[in-house]
Amino acid sequence: VSTAQIVPDTTADEVEAVLSAAAAAAGPLGALRPAERARLLRAAADALDAAAGELVPIAIEESSLPEGRLTGEVARSSGQLRLFADALEEGSYLEVILDSADPDAKPVPRPDLRRMLVPLGPVLVFAASNFPFAFSVPGGDTASALAAGSPVIVKAHPGHPRLSQRTGEVLVEALRAAGAPEGTFAVVHGMEVGTTALTDPRIKAAAFTGSVKGGRALLDIATTRDEPIPFYGELGSLNPVFVTPAAVSARGDAIAEGYVGSFTLGTGQFCTKPGLLFLPEGHGLEERIADAVRGTAPAGMLNERIREGHAHERDRLEGIGSVRTVVHGADADAGIAPTLLATTAKELLADPDALLQECFGPTSIIVDYSGPEELLAAAEAFGGNLTATVHAEDADAPTLPPLLDVLRERTGRLVYNGWPTGVAVAWAMHHGGPYPATTASVHTSVGTTAIRRFLRPVSYQNTPQALLPEALRDDNPLGLPRRVDGELRPA
Amino acid sequence: VSTAQIVPDTTADEVEAVLSAAAAAAGPLGALRPAERARLLRAAADALDAAAGELVPIAIEESSLPEGRLTGEVARSSGQLRLFADALEEGSYLEVILDSADPDAKPVPRPDLRRMLVPLGPVLVFAASNFPFAFSVPGGDTASALAAGSPVIVKAHPGHPRLSQRTGEVLVEALRAAGAPEGTFAVVHGMEVGTTALTDPRIKAAAFTGSVKGGRALLDIATTRDEPIPFYGELGSLNPVFVTPAAVSARGDAIAEGYVGSFTLGTGQFCTKPGLLFLPEGHGLEERIADAVRGTAPAGMLNERIREGHAHERDRLEGIGSVRTVVHGADADAGIAPTLLATTAKELLADPDALLQECFGPTSIIVDYSGPEELLAAAEAFGGNLTATVHAEDADAPTLPPLLDVLRERTGRLVYNGWPTGVAVAWAMHHGGPYPATTASVHTSVGTTAIRRFLRPVSYQNTPQALLPEALRDDNPLGLPRRVDGELRPA
Repeated sequence: VSTAQIVPDTTADEVEAVLSAAAAAAGPLGALRPAERARLLRAAADALDAAAGELVPIAIEESSLPEGRLTGEVARSSGQLRLFADALEEGSYLEVILDSADPDAKPVPRPDLRRMLVPLGPVLVFAASNFPFAFSVPGGDTASALAAGSPVIVKAHPGHPRLSQRTGEVLVEALRAAGAPEGTFAVVHGMEVGTTALTDPRIKAAAFTGSVKGGRALLDIATTRDEPIPFYGELGSLNPVFVTPAAVSARGDAIAEGYVGSFTLGTGQFCTKPGLLFLPEGHGLEERIADAVRGTAPAGMLNERIREGHAHERDRLEGIGSVRTVVHGADADAGIAPTLLATTAKELLADPDALLQECFGPTSIIVDYSGPEELLAAAEAFGGNLTATVHAEDADAPTLPPLLDVLRERTGRLVYNGWPTGVAVAWAMHHGGPYPATTASVHTSVGTTAIRRFLRPVSYQNTPQALLPEALRDDNPLGLPRRVDGELRPA
Repeated sequence: VSTAQIVPDTTADEVEAVLSAAAAAAGPLGALRPAERARLLRAAADALDAAAGELVPIAIEESSLPEGRLTGEVARSSGQLRLFADALEEGSYLEVILDSADPDAKPVPRPDLRRMLVPLGPVLVFAASNFPFAFSVPGGDTASALAAGSPVIVKAHPGHPRLSQRTGEVLVEALRAAGAPEGTFAVVHGMEVGTTALTDPRIKAAAFTGSVKGGRALLDIATTRDEPIPFYGELGSLNPVFVTPAAVSARGDAIAEGYVGSFTLGTGQFCTKPGLLFLPEGHGLEERIADAVRGTAPAGMLNERIREGHAHERDRLEGIGSVRTVVHGADADAGIAPTLLATTAKELLADPDALLQECFGPTSIIVDYSGPEELLAAAEAFGGNLTATVHAEDADAPTLPPLLDVLRERTGRLVYNGWPTGVAVAWAMHHGGPYPATTASVHTSVGTTAIRRFLRPVSYQNTPQALLPEALRDDNPLGLPRRVDGELRPA
């Protein structure tokens, strides 16, 4: 496959047609019953699974990722579509609240009020490079926006254009066959196409996974439009790991191996890659970790731009006086070998800005700390992160709450005695965090609650039954869980 | 009371102390159990009620609003604090979701995940002019942010500085006496003080009620900071009312009176004031409406700036060739008399930008329409609004859904056979809407769900019981409603 097979940028006329069709689809798609949209999501999931044999080889060619990983990613993506279908059928996502009229309410009578969530309208999704399926065309942003009832336009990532195009065709066809309104879903190509679409008044929200620089630029466009729109960007994260002396004593070898496995997984190209490992002074694990690093085979990176970005940031870190190179991973034809660096918490605290920069790729830093106070101070030096991880033993429990409090203030997910890579798609997952982890820490991009990003509330006041949406009628024909006069009533 | 009794701007040193105290209070305030924060809110509510006798006279002096209105507003504000206390005690607002570990999950095993919402941190509230209590120091933004567990700094509105200062003292004292952390609440004064605080990294969210111009300027500051923060602004709204021929036939006189009562209430200084009334051609109600307008006593406006702004916009509307002045309300010493204008839907559709501008004060426009198609086209000309109102009869029901669909797309609250002024504080209330009604249509500024603006999710992964927050423990010691493995379980 030659690079000539790049998909051309979507033309202005084509973009106009896509935007116009999405705007036209918003009403009918939003008007479907939740269970009807669930059926569309399941049809998309089935089609994606059925096309895996065709799509995965394209993904391998375009991303350098191995087959097993990509096959798993397809399953994760189709599973995600089905989980959102479950959430639609369950119905809580509509957040229906009914308050009876109260003519005696003080200081003023209260009318009959009925609240629910409705779709925002067409959503623009900027796909990521590092998950050609799960954070790309058929990924979480697409699934949650479609679930919400918002038509979706995906701006394909240039790292896997043919896969994006073909996956888009599979989904469009599946949605059409299942009866979705024309315009429910589309894929476009081109950086300028994306920024132009982001300024279009028919786009009512946008989601993004990528770099801090790219995400911030798009955030600025989204919020300075004539009509500002929500911009849900997941940007960057260091994902520090904190290990207690007791954990080193009890499971030092396992921690060493788990750490290297996590930071080199997918050639370190995960937003949840652990960028720093805090170990107590005298931990004695450095050689063990270094051995594991040296034993990790070089692997290709997603694309040349990411390879260069990683090399540049790795070299910058290695050039810092207080940073010691334990293992320098060479760039070779076979791919990139992982790099292990080391420093101390004292040095980190002396110049946190230099060390607390994301290095996207297989490079991580061991940080030796002198004791709990220094560990806490180091934790406080971090900004917003997607995850923070603690390795500890039962005996540490009384001393951990201050550390967990500091970390919770800075992160979206706290991992205990595990590793941050691998983001389960589940009801209780939160994938987000304070800036720069995301541009909207109030929301998540993974898990069923991600649907909330594309919905807004509406209240109906004193409206006759016949004119109310089904979700708000007295007889609850959709069988929804609802809050009635303050009381939660399961379906 | 002379204008010399203006409260001076808060000094830079004082602002620094307030911000520092708020940052210090965030941890302890957020760590209180929901029922403990409910107690703080109830203490604040009681103190506000107890101080009404002292506060209302200051409010009368500073706002020109009548005593009955202000007394009602105190009751509304204390009731609002108590409703948020109810919501805290009920506990659903924490959105607790627990997923059991599933080692057999495909494509990857699922860890134990437990999600809840946690406070964002210190919130800056920009108080409004037109509700000296309910959208000011002790208003809905304050109540919902405190309920969330976020310390609050209110930037007082310059229209009622002494009231703001004194109300702040009452609340600070009540919160302190009830055991709230120092720094939980503060009031500051000065426009520059507000914009400076908005850029401070210790402020994690802001809320605002005011003009489109002012709100947009603050939105830009909030989103272009180094760390962008959520900015919940309620800006402007036209609140159109649509009346069917059948409603005119059945209740023309009542509609005429209700309309005038609503648009002149509070001298028209409500964000929900009906700015346009759509009536079928030949409605025959103009004289009746004009009489009611002429029969409405002139009343003072909140302040000179608002009086001038209203006069300027009213005069601009009167100067439009297609607008006819039915009643011109003169500005006199006794106050401002209401103004009634008239035009047609045809003229409105010919130049919507000229006519669809908010005129904050007692001026409204009757718009004659020729039939249902023209009415629908006129409805489609509107941008984001807080409310839209329909007056209709049972016989209209089959023809109304298209109109309601168009209006729902553009508004946060649909009022049927009522009037938009008067926003009930209730579980099911939504006070919001697409831009420019608000800067964040996904959220509300009134109703218990307003608390959601100041909370962000966190997930705990594989964390031992002893280290989990009480809300997430297996034994559910707080008695919270929770979702467990996908199933909603009331407390």
